[in-house]
Amino acid sequence: MADELKRGILDKISAAADVAALPRYELPLLADEIRQRLVDVVSQTGGHLASSLGVVELTIALMRVFAPPADKVVWDVGHQSYPWKLLTGRRESFHTLRQFGGISGFTKRTESEYDPFGAGHAGTALSAAVGMAVARDRRGGDEAVIAVVGDAALANGVTLEALNNISDTTKRLIVVLNDNEMSIGGPVGALSSHLGRLLSNPRYNRWKGAVERLAHRLQLGRLRAPYHRTEQAVKSLFLQNAFFEELGLRYMGPIDGHNIGALCDALTIARNYDRPILVHVSTLKGRGFRPAEQHPEEWHGVGKFDPLKSQDTVQSVKRGYSQVMGEALAEMARNDTSLVAITAAMRAGTGLDSFAKEFPQRFFDVGICEEHAVVFAAGLATEGLRPVLAIYSTFLQRAVDCVMHDVCLQNLPVIFCIDRAGAVGNDGPTHHGMYDIAMLRCLPGISLLQPRSGRELVQMLQAARQQDGPVAIRYPRDNPPADEPEELELLPEALEWGKAEVVESGDGRGSEHGFVAMWALGDCVELARESAALLREQGIRVEVVNARFIKPLDRELLAKQAAAGAFWVTIENGALAGGFGSALLEAAGELAVSSQRVLRFGWPDRFVPQGTVDELRRECGLTAPAISEAVVAAMVGLKSVKAEA
Amino acid sequence: MADELKRGILDKISAAADVAALPRYELPLLADEIRQRLVDVVSQTGGHLASSLGVVELTIALMRVFAPPADKVVWDVGHQSYPWKLLTGRRESFHTLRQFGGISGFTKRTESEYDPFGAGHAGTALSAAVGMAVARDRRGGDEAVIAVVGDAALANGVTLEALNNISDTTKRLIVVLNDNEMSIGGPVGALSSHLGRLLSNPRYNRWKGAVERLAHRLQLGRLRAPYHRTEQAVKSLFLQNAFFEELGLRYMGPIDGHNIGALCDALTIARNYDRPILVHVSTLKGRGFRPAEQHPEEWHGVGKFDPLKSQDTVQSVKRGYSQVMGEALAEMARNDTSLVAITAAMRAGTGLDSFAKEFPQRFFDVGICEEHAVVFAAGLATEGLRPVLAIYSTFLQRAVDCVMHDVCLQNLPVIFCIDRAGAVGNDGPTHHGMYDIAMLRCLPGISLLQPRSGRELVQMLQAARQQDGPVAIRYPRDNPPADEPEELELLPEALEWGKAEVVESGDGRGSEHGFVAMWALGDCVELARESAALLREQGIRVEVVNARFIKPLDRELLAKQAAAGAFWVTIENGALAGGFGSALLEAAGELAVSSQRVLRFGWPDRFVPQGTVDELRRECGLTAPAISEAVVAAMVGLKSVKAEA
Repeated sequence: MADELKRGILDKISAAADVAALPRYELPLLADEIRQRLVDVVSQTGGHLASSLGVVELTIALMRVFAPPADKVVWDVGHQSYPWKLLTGRRESFHTLRQFGGISGFTKRTESEYDPFGAGHAGTALSAAVGMAVARDRRGGDEAVIAVVGDAALANGVTLEALNNISDTTKRLIVVLNDNEMSIGGPVGALSSHLGRLLSNPRYNRWKGAVERLAHRLQLGRLRAPYHRTEQAVKSLFLQNAFFEELGLRYMGPIDGHNIGALCDALTIARNYDRPILVHVSTLKGRGFRPAEQHPEEWHGVGKFDPLKSQDTVQSVKRGYSQVMGEALAEMARNDTSLVAITAAMRAGTGLDSFAKEFPQRFFDVGICEEHAVVFAAGLATEGLRPVLAIYSTFLQRAVDCVMHDVCLQNLPVIFCIDRAGAVGNDGPTHHGMYDIAMLRCLPGISLLQPRSGRELVQMLQAARQQDGPVAIRYPRDNPPADEPEELELLPEALEWGKAEVVESGDGRGSEHGFVAMWALGDCVELARESAALLREQGIRVEVVNARFIKPLDRELLAKQAAAGAFWVTIENGALAGGFGSALLEAAGELAVSSQRVLRFGWPDRFVPQGTVDELRRECGLTAPAISEAVVAAMVGLKSVKAEA
Repeated sequence: MADELKRGILDKISAAADVAALPRYELPLLADEIRQRLVDVVSQTGGHLASSLGVVELTIALMRVFAPPADKVVWDVGHQSYPWKLLTGRRESFHTLRQFGGISGFTKRTESEYDPFGAGHAGTALSAAVGMAVARDRRGGDEAVIAVVGDAALANGVTLEALNNISDTTKRLIVVLNDNEMSIGGPVGALSSHLGRLLSNPRYNRWKGAVERLAHRLQLGRLRAPYHRTEQAVKSLFLQNAFFEELGLRYMGPIDGHNIGALCDALTIARNYDRPILVHVSTLKGRGFRPAEQHPEEWHGVGKFDPLKSQDTVQSVKRGYSQVMGEALAEMARNDTSLVAITAAMRAGTGLDSFAKEFPQRFFDVGICEEHAVVFAAGLATEGLRPVLAIYSTFLQRAVDCVMHDVCLQNLPVIFCIDRAGAVGNDGPTHHGMYDIAMLRCLPGISLLQPRSGRELVQMLQAARQQDGPVAIRYPRDNPPADEPEELELLPEALEWGKAEVVESGDGRGSEHGFVAMWALGDCVELARESAALLREQGIRVEVVNARFIKPLDRELLAKQAAAGAFWVTIENGALAGGFGSALLEAAGELAVSSQRVLRFGWPDRFVPQGTVDELRRECGLTAPAISEAVVAAMVGLKSVKAEA
């Protein structure tokens, strides 16, 4: 009994039904325990803390009103699903959150039947939920389909497209608008202002009490018919909301998102409603953990932290590519009034904080609207401005068509700073930036670069500014190499456009095994040098090239190496299919030489899981020993084939 | 003088200012002349007739109220810009519309300073206009920025993202909502219903008269201040529109879009308005040409027609891949209740008309919402349905992230029917479907196929249905080969998954030049056979392969050919960079052979212009003589290199 008490309430929960069975008075205790567990675990694993802290009561209420997994709860983005995971059979593995082989930091279908849809990119929940609702309608099912979407994701184009399609497509769908009055970095756009006005409406508080009383009086949740007859009565409780009404959704709210009773009442009404309905819930991001409440953006996604010591400050992150980009851009902007910067809800993540502070009129956070961001940049460029769009690789996938149709086709000088290119680590496959090379290098007119250091990133930015057409510079999440100078300086010496850099020349003659020309991309240059060192130990002559340009590729150097009988090796932090190595293959194929042996290293043609980047590299053979071994094996194989020929 | 009269009004117009200078009474005559010219020319060139016929008066009014090119008019999609082109210095070249070397069927920056932004894909105008407005605000300019967007494009995610961003970003922007009450194939979604309710409001007609009188009384357009003081008076003329108001836009309308006077009055108010404003204009698609008025969808995009004979019917199009797909899908659906079909506003274009008629409950037109379409399909698939999304290659670019994040990552069995893959002809570079291979084949888990005939398309559809993961089948706009059977039949014999088909085996020994393994993709198989015939005349042994699978590629056959010393040639109707040939290069590179000579034929790394597909193929060396010649040259070159080695 003492043990039982010590275990707490949370430890007795292994399915949503267990939450539904708890006595009411235990619910606030459960909420406290969940928050404690979240802080305990995320302080060890890192992760999306603030969002998950904000939806603890909402999660509990959803489990009490609905019957998942039969009822489908679709969490948009999924990074706020930690409480959901804790309560749906993943409590004991929760400490493996975001770790290699552990549970995902997002919803994931293969992880639990309680996750009907995987997420990671904002804005998909409504579309997916409409699909599920249609499937239910077709088979005459009665289960509820609930999409939980944040106020920031509401402004995303996919969400808005879905909103417009709901009322034509299904009669029963519940949208829970989880409104914490901010995007990752603060509210953006007219919809945010609109929601803000709703929250500040004085009727809000009166409404809360009224709906609770009414819900009890009607004993809602038993029958739909009685409620239907009292619709007129309930109607008076709804705030006017022409915006959602015009989109065919009934609006209900706002509800206090930390009052489990009020949430349950509102969700019960929604469950029994006979047309699509939106429940507007007001929550506090970071709720219950003071540092996160006070600095929700800093605590949106965090690394490991000490929950006791860091009540006030997050551990500072080493200056990485993002910060270097932001500082360099600000420095350039001081003498170049045409430069403007754009982010899609990732001001801090892309290193644009200081730029935004110094040039508030030249900085645009468009919210989670990647497509608009790109076309907006194109519009700016037509009028002589020089927009720099800083965006994560995985999110730029959202706007590939705009890059092609609006920027490249019109040859507009937009600079894309593609952050988080390559493996991102613990956020896993939804966030790895592995496909940007394949998706962009097929586009005519774009230049595609990757620096090997922060210093080179600065040079590339300056060189990109001199171009008349679109330029994309990709760089990884990792910090630049350790030998970076502390002080940022602009480097007036121009980067020669389209030229690779020979980092280590393969002096002397080729060995019996031939001559390896090792082309490495950006952050893979160090790996190439390590691999080259191992190959040299085996008597193989190696030239290490910092490719710099994926497009245009340095064909002159390639031709020179071809003439010298190169055996090419490529190493990239990107997907092999269609990637940088593939570009080199294509170029080599166009050189009229008899042998174009190219061995490519990069991410394989399967989804790469979560884990530290080092773990993932080891798993995929992207280490110096693995690479040098594979090169030797291929060269020996080649030699033997040649000998046979 | 007689000549002058005979020339008509249109022939005297060479710039927007000329339109502004015309006496009022000539404007209806000008409109008539424009319509006549549109029908005359488009009957010869083909093109987007109905949309352009609908905006003749709007075009004239824009030119009278605004001063382009200083004022920026951004036409969304751009296919309704024919009247605009006629009146802005492109009258004399208008007969070259959509022809090789002629003027574009869409707006195009390099064509005229009157086209501030190029278009072709719906939904980009607002974002681009916001960019232009910001640039103007920054330099303190006074010009107007006007985005003209259709009601269908209003529901597109890019437009909606932009709408949400307008009021935070600029104070002066005019959105003209050109509401013809239909998408390409009829109205879709809640916003359409909403706009319809506005048009049916009895105040509409009264309002029209009132605004005209008021506008004259106020002598609007001279000063902003007087108008501002009378805002209260004008306010009563605005219909309530909370939807746009909540998005921060003043709403004005609806205006009769064929009444030049009313349009001018409304646009004058808008020009002088000091916050973002939306002018709702009601137009009739196809206006003035009876067949197009009656069947606007059939007349949305047309081929050549006889304006006299075809007053009632459009010439019937030969049964192409789209029709075969639609018929086969309907046939499959008769015995498979899990099959459902989705289109993004292209019901007729993708061949789904008959499916939609037969299975209205299993057919979903989501409007111009490509991203929603894909995620919606994913949602359907999670619940056991088998969604088939038929979409043009160029528009699927919009949803690449959703294909990756929502379908592939979750390994959901969605079938993508990628129509208009490859060169599309006269619609030109905005519509060529050249990048789907590069953008999709990098995604893990997807299968990517292309049939060589309608019969094979049917087989592929059936085989795709048997897969547990995502499958994309691409096919071109062209008709299938002439030897297609008239009757469609399902072909129970399964297509062997991942296996290429040897169409012509290269019997006998290799010639002195070696042995060519020619891998052709889909509609390029015929071209390969012609090229092979020419090569054989030169004594070269050729094996012709119908690749069928871009992914997974038939590596077994490749290995066999490698062992036989193949010189590979690839031919594809797609971009070379990252395309099918590149996939074969990658696979060949992984075979441990000494020589991987691959010669690739496809579209080069530049934007391919408009023209007939034959013209474009000739221009890019994609003809049998050009290919065979290049192959011989490469083989001879290779041989000589070998001889030197």
